[in-house]
Amino acid sequence: MPIYSAPTRDTRFIINEMLDLASYGNLPGFEMASSDVTDAVLNEGGKFCAEVLAPINQSGDQEGCTRNEDGSVTTPKGFKAAFDQFRTAGWGTLAHPEEFGGQGMPHVLGFVMEEFISSANQAFGMYPGLTNGAISALIAKGSQEQKETYLPKMVSGEWTGTMNLTEPHCGTDLGMIRTKAEPQADGSYAITGTKIFISAGEHDMADNIIHLVLAKTPGAPDSTKGISLFVVPKFLVNEDGSVGERNGVMCGSIEHKMGIHANSTCVLNYDGAKGWLVGEENKGLAAMFIMMNAARLGVGIQGLSQAEVAYQNAVAYALDRRQGRALTGPADPEAQADPIFVHPDVRRMLMDAKAFTEGMRALCLWGALQVDLTHKAQTEEERAEADAMIGLLTPVIKGYGTDKGYEVATNMQQVFGGHGYIEEWGMSQFVRDARIAQIYEGTNGVQAMDLCGRKLASKGGAAIQAFFKTVGDDIAATKGDENLGAMAEQLEKALGQQQAATMWFMQNAMQNPNDLGAGAHHYMHIMGIVTLGWMWLRMADVAQAALASGTGDNAFYEAKLATARYYMDRFLPDAGALRRKLEAGSESMMALGEEAFATAA
Amino acid sequence: MPIYSAPTRDTRFIINEMLDLASYGNLPGFEMASSDVTDAVLNEGGKFCAEVLAPINQSGDQEGCTRNEDGSVTTPKGFKAAFDQFRTAGWGTLAHPEEFGGQGMPHVLGFVMEEFISSANQAFGMYPGLTNGAISALIAKGSQEQKETYLPKMVSGEWTGTMNLTEPHCGTDLGMIRTKAEPQADGSYAITGTKIFISAGEHDMADNIIHLVLAKTPGAPDSTKGISLFVVPKFLVNEDGSVGERNGVMCGSIEHKMGIHANSTCVLNYDGAKGWLVGEENKGLAAMFIMMNAARLGVGIQGLSQAEVAYQNAVAYALDRRQGRALTGPADPEAQADPIFVHPDVRRMLMDAKAFTEGMRALCLWGALQVDLTHKAQTEEERAEADAMIGLLTPVIKGYGTDKGYEVATNMQQVFGGHGYIEEWGMSQFVRDARIAQIYEGTNGVQAMDLCGRKLASKGGAAIQAFFKTVGDDIAATKGDENLGAMAEQLEKALGQQQAATMWFMQNAMQNPNDLGAGAHHYMHIMGIVTLGWMWLRMADVAQAALASGTGDNAFYEAKLATARYYMDRFLPDAGALRRKLEAGSESMMALGEEAFATAA
Repeated sequence: MPIYSAPTRDTRFIINEMLDLASYGNLPGFEMASSDVTDAVLNEGGKFCAEVLAPINQSGDQEGCTRNEDGSVTTPKGFKAAFDQFRTAGWGTLAHPEEFGGQGMPHVLGFVMEEFISSANQAFGMYPGLTNGAISALIAKGSQEQKETYLPKMVSGEWTGTMNLTEPHCGTDLGMIRTKAEPQADGSYAITGTKIFISAGEHDMADNIIHLVLAKTPGAPDSTKGISLFVVPKFLVNEDGSVGERNGVMCGSIEHKMGIHANSTCVLNYDGAKGWLVGEENKGLAAMFIMMNAARLGVGIQGLSQAEVAYQNAVAYALDRRQGRALTGPADPEAQADPIFVHPDVRRMLMDAKAFTEGMRALCLWGALQVDLTHKAQTEEERAEADAMIGLLTPVIKGYGTDKGYEVATNMQQVFGGHGYIEEWGMSQFVRDARIAQIYEGTNGVQAMDLCGRKLASKGGAAIQAFFKTVGDDIAATKGDENLGAMAEQLEKALGQQQAATMWFMQNAMQNPNDLGAGAHHYMHIMGIVTLGWMWLRMADVAQAALASGTGDNAFYEAKLATARYYMDRFLPDAGALRRKLEAGSESMMALGEEAFATAA
Repeated sequence: MPIYSAPTRDTRFIINEMLDLASYGNLPGFEMASSDVTDAVLNEGGKFCAEVLAPINQSGDQEGCTRNEDGSVTTPKGFKAAFDQFRTAGWGTLAHPEEFGGQGMPHVLGFVMEEFISSANQAFGMYPGLTNGAISALIAKGSQEQKETYLPKMVSGEWTGTMNLTEPHCGTDLGMIRTKAEPQADGSYAITGTKIFISAGEHDMADNIIHLVLAKTPGAPDSTKGISLFVVPKFLVNEDGSVGERNGVMCGSIEHKMGIHANSTCVLNYDGAKGWLVGEENKGLAAMFIMMNAARLGVGIQGLSQAEVAYQNAVAYALDRRQGRALTGPADPEAQADPIFVHPDVRRMLMDAKAFTEGMRALCLWGALQVDLTHKAQTEEERAEADAMIGLLTPVIKGYGTDKGYEVATNMQQVFGGHGYIEEWGMSQFVRDARIAQIYEGTNGVQAMDLCGRKLASKGGAAIQAFFKTVGDDIAATKGDENLGAMAEQLEKALGQQQAATMWFMQNAMQNPNDLGAGAHHYMHIMGIVTLGWMWLRMADVAQAALASGTGDNAFYEAKLATARYYMDRFLPDAGALRRKLEAGSESMMALGEEAFATAA
């Protein structure tokens, strides 16, 4: 069976040393996140994931979810019991507001747990993950009554939540949704329509499921400006808060997917189900984006999580499996062969994985800190700055993080040779599970357009200029350093490629918007490469300081420096190639009409 | 259900116009390959694949193979009947020698059919595919008696063949195999041991299965110099050629794999099975490489095949699915949304697929021609030249072709958004089936080392110098052309990157062989990019001439030119980035010891 242990040492490094969480102790909630508490969360949370969730990951994949004749869904063996333990231990409550029963701790810690959970069992993690998205929307847009009715039980994990956006004929283009919401005399709405791809849409792990549903009221505009958001519980809630009558929403079928088999992906049929408007009529898209932004960061973490668990297993296999000899002569002459760990091509794949996962973890937790600062920083200016930064980086974390996460998971499977292709070893599942993250919560093509078509231009480019300044300042601060200087210069070149690409967009995209669309994917990857490079420069700086201060654990810090060097050598060169592709524009890409794509005759 | 139609138009272009097969009419077998015959093979073969094999691809994936209690294996519904039709139509006999019942036609046509078959049903194609490998080995190394006993029935498809290399503890490092061959008084050997990952190892589609098995005779050297090859039929063959007694080889189990479910991947237990030495004792590795080289080209074609069928389905979906509006304004204002085909990011993925599949098809068929010339060219010099060229390009076709084939299949799945992740649509299967091609017949890491550690240096670098000269000559010939000149210059730059990378290897790999290992993967990709670019330059040249000659079908030739331009714009830039990674050497890659890869604490 595949192995997993939570990467607590690396996480502590990022939280305590790179982000220096203690320095934010004056902000609400952060005072609770002392290094003792943080350590306890990491250790106990990591243990829970490794000991409770990881052991049911492979069996969950093999068994999958089952829809019963009455429309109920049975999750795989062990899932209900594991969710009970999850609920009892309060793992879902960490970063939610105390007002609704949460622990009010920084999102940084919430993100740490999301990674651990998802590495151990991505399909399981989606049940609380979707609930988090629904909680965010209700906190931001729900009425006081809605908050009181739903949030405490969703935060505690007694109830779970879902996001209902997609319909058979529309996914990305939500303006086309057909689900109807008819106002009723009692102030509620009768919701009718079909939603598909609803993750965690029906299951047996919680007493109630709170669906957040996009629908159209009568006469609403035929575009995204006509979408409203409704809360539709599976069971209506009695006045005393207990679960009442079954509502008119049923699981019509569950999908047979490439992966995440243990999460029930449902077709949900709404047949005059009772729902209540969340926020204002026709303003559902804004509410939806609150869920969506939280979910996108969570999906980025899934990219990291599958790369991480696949990496751990590949390292173990590479050290155990013996095949051939080191190119420089036998590493273990007594044995019949050396561990495949000695082969440069195996090491290349492992180092790619190490450089990506550690860099991506730093980025995700830095991103979580921005989420916290958006809400909790002391000045309006600081809050706005953090908000702009996380808005800019969200599509990068989701899009680049999941593209690269899938690539790394695939390469870790490659380390296993033929055994990687056999389901028993578990590597196939990591690849299959990782694959969905590039698709859902907005395909990575949508992320690229969000980044280039919306975020770059927003407020006159203020966010991207702030990004350039921040990264540039960190480069300037380390450029003169004897050891870090060379790395800073490598990163400076890559940043220059991104700046040039940005300039090219400014000069061309207004005349021809297809030039923006043609280069958006390339730009998102350039920015991902630069951003992880920035994280590596910061980590290298911290590691060097730790070595100089003589606090011990030198091997850990030396590995950080070596991996930073590897990152600069092996990841940054792509920025230049991507810029050249971007600057090729849309001409040859869009030159051919549909008849040129026909195959036959 | 997914669609498939054979890309006959593009194939005719490559065979008749780019390769100009008619000009080889003086060589044995080529006289049969008139354009009439070629057309018939393409049309009828394509029809067979589309109408017989494609319809059982998805059901085969869903049903998989079943091992029965008696050790027999039942293939999915329809497979046996399809193989009967395949046999009756003689599709397996095309390129085999007439001496053994083949049609003696060029390998070029054999490769065409391999692509069509594999696109329609990769798992099915492996049954005749492995048989081809076994046939090659017997033709090259078998005794006259062995040839007469086995080849006619293997060529006809009455019997199939397998390759038995891997054992539980060894795959790449075949020097470690433990299967024993004890000489018997009657001149045969008793074969005992366990082989794993044996594709098509046991099934119900043919009367006999001819296993080619690597084993060690008593006292053989404990390395690859101690390996011998044996032929071990499932049923012993009576003197009259009929099938006799059951031999001591049994299927112990079949593997549960990520894909190619309809091919039975067996653990085969040899328990004193009767086998006969093929070729010389202890010279099994050379015989194995004959099978292997044929198989590697076949696997490269699989990379193409899955990219092609995934591309066809993605094109159909992109034209059908409506979502959002073109960035330049509504393309179909009457409808509620435009087909997603209008979006640059969708077009980018489709154009990447088109540029790869058409370029890769040209490369595979050009490679097939080299295989033909190796055997049939009129002078020793021409034969040696073709042999060196296909030897050099085989790891590129296998390694680059399958890495890129998997990437393209994944991107074609991405075009489907969420629907791509649902098994019903079939895109997941293309990705899962494509994945194995990067692994088997030597992982792509092994291919990279074969290219860089063996083929580059062979005979003082004669092959790579010949490659540089040939590509360089084609560049020089088109550089002055008004339309092609710019493309030729782009390709020249990429070729320069490859030449610089080659030089860097020469200057560094002798002192530190890890520098070669660290860059081998990058080099293989640079060479793949350059080689496909060369194919595109040749195709563009032919297309331009066809346009000038006014033979009609202008849209086809104009699309060729536009796709060539796209290839140069979007594929070539990676060569420079890969060279920079290669020149970073092995230092940061090999800097860390195993303790640095531990996760916990």
